[in-house]
Amino acid sequence: KVMVVAHEKGLAEKIERVRTLVAPAKPNPDVMALNPLNKLPTLILDDGRAIYDSRVIVEHLDSIGAGAKLFPVSGDERLEGLRRQALADGVLDFMLLWLSERARPEAQQSPELLVALKLKFKTAFDALEREVPTMTKAPFGIGHVTVGAVLGYADFRYAKEAWRDGRPQLAAFAETVLSRPSFKATEHVDAY
Amino acid sequence: KVMVVAHEKGLAEKIERVRTLVAPAKPNPDVMALNPLNKLPTLILDDGRAIYDSRVIVEHLDSIGAGAKLFPVSGDERLEGLRRQALADGVLDFMLLWLSERARPEAQQSPELLVALKLKFKTAFDALEREVPTMTKAPFGIGHVTVGAVLGYADFRYAKEAWRDGRPQLAAFAETVLSRPSFKATEHVDAY
Repeated sequence: KVMVVAHEKGLAEKIERVRTLVAPAKPNPDVMALNPLNKLPTLILDDGRAIYDSRVIVEHLDSIGAGAKLFPVSGDERLEGLRRQALADGVLDFMLLWLSERARPEAQQSPELLVALKLKFKTAFDALEREVPTMTKAPFGIGHVTVGAVLGYADFRYAKEAWRDGRPQLAAFAETVLSRPSFKATEHVDAY
Repeated sequence: KVMVVAHEKGLAEKIERVRTLVAPAKPNPDVMALNPLNKLPTLILDDGRAIYDSRVIVEHLDSIGAGAKLFPVSGDERLEGLRRQALADGVLDFMLLWLSERARPEAQQSPELLVALKLKFKTAFDALEREVPTMTKAPFGIGHVTVGAVLGYADFRYAKEAWRDGRPQLAAFAETVLSRPSFKATEHVDAY
C-alpha cells in the first residue's frame, strides 16, 4: 500500500527499502527502537524521525508528492475515502491475523477464531463487492489504493479462497486497479 | 477515545450509545451487517451510513463539532498528531490482543506471544514517556486524546503492570489529561 502510493506520487525512488522481518510473537529490536509496535511499514524521515502506521505514512506521502491528491481535502468525499481505507486496512489486518493464527502449533490454534476469520473474509469481501459502484464513480484515491492492496494480497496469500467467485464487480475492479503501473511495480514477487 | 472526542467537540448528547459485544472469535451479526470487521466503535450516521474505525470517526467528529480543532490542518503539526495517534492506537490494539490471548483456554495460549506482548507494553510505555516533553508543548489534540485513552485503559485493565513506575513524566501527563471533563465523563465505570 505504501509503495503503491509512493509510485502514484512520484516518490518511489526516494524511498530506500530495508528488508525487515517482524511477527507478533517475534519482536525485532531494530524495529522496536524506532516503532515500539514492532510493525511494518515504518518510515524513517530524513530528519531521523520514524513515522507509522501505513495510514500516517501514505497521508504524508500524499501531502509531499506530485500529482493528484489521493486524500480528498474535506467533506463527504474525504469521509468516503477514509471509510473505505479503514475497511480495507481492517481486511489486511485480519488476513495477517489469520496467517499468524495458522502458523501456530496446531494445539495452540483456536478453532472458533479460525471459523470467525473465515466468516469475516466472506462478509468483508461481500461488502467490498457492494463498494464497487460508488468507488468506480469517485476519483481514484486512497480508498481505491487500499482496496487494490487487499485484492493483490488476497491473490498472493489467499488464492484458495477464490474471492472472485460470485463477486463479478470486484473482479472487474481488480482487473483495472491491479494493472495500474503503481501496482505492477509493487507486485508480491519478492515480498513475503 | 471516540466519546472523549465527542465531549471535547460538544457532540456527546447527539450520539446514542448502544451496548454491544464483539470479540475476535465471536462474530456479532448485527455489527457485521454494518461493519464487516466486527469491531467497535462503529458509528451510524443520520443517513444510515456506518463509519469506522475510531480514527475515521474522530476525524469526522472533529470536522463537524464545535471548539478548537483536534486534528491540525497540515504540516508538521498534523504529522506529529497523526504519528502520536497511531502510536497510541497501536498500544490500544495490542492491549486488546493481550486480553484476548489471555482469555483463551490455557493450552491455546502462545507463551512466545505473551512474552512479546509484555515486552511491547514496556517498550511502548517507555516511548510514551519520551513523548511527553513535546506533547505538553503542542496544543491539545488527537495525539493527547489517544495517549490519554491508552493511560485510562491501562489503569482499567492493566493496573498490575504499574506503568507509572519509572515514568514520572507520563504519570504527570496522566494526572492532567485524565482530569479533563471529557475523560471524567467517559471513565470506564460502566464499560467492559
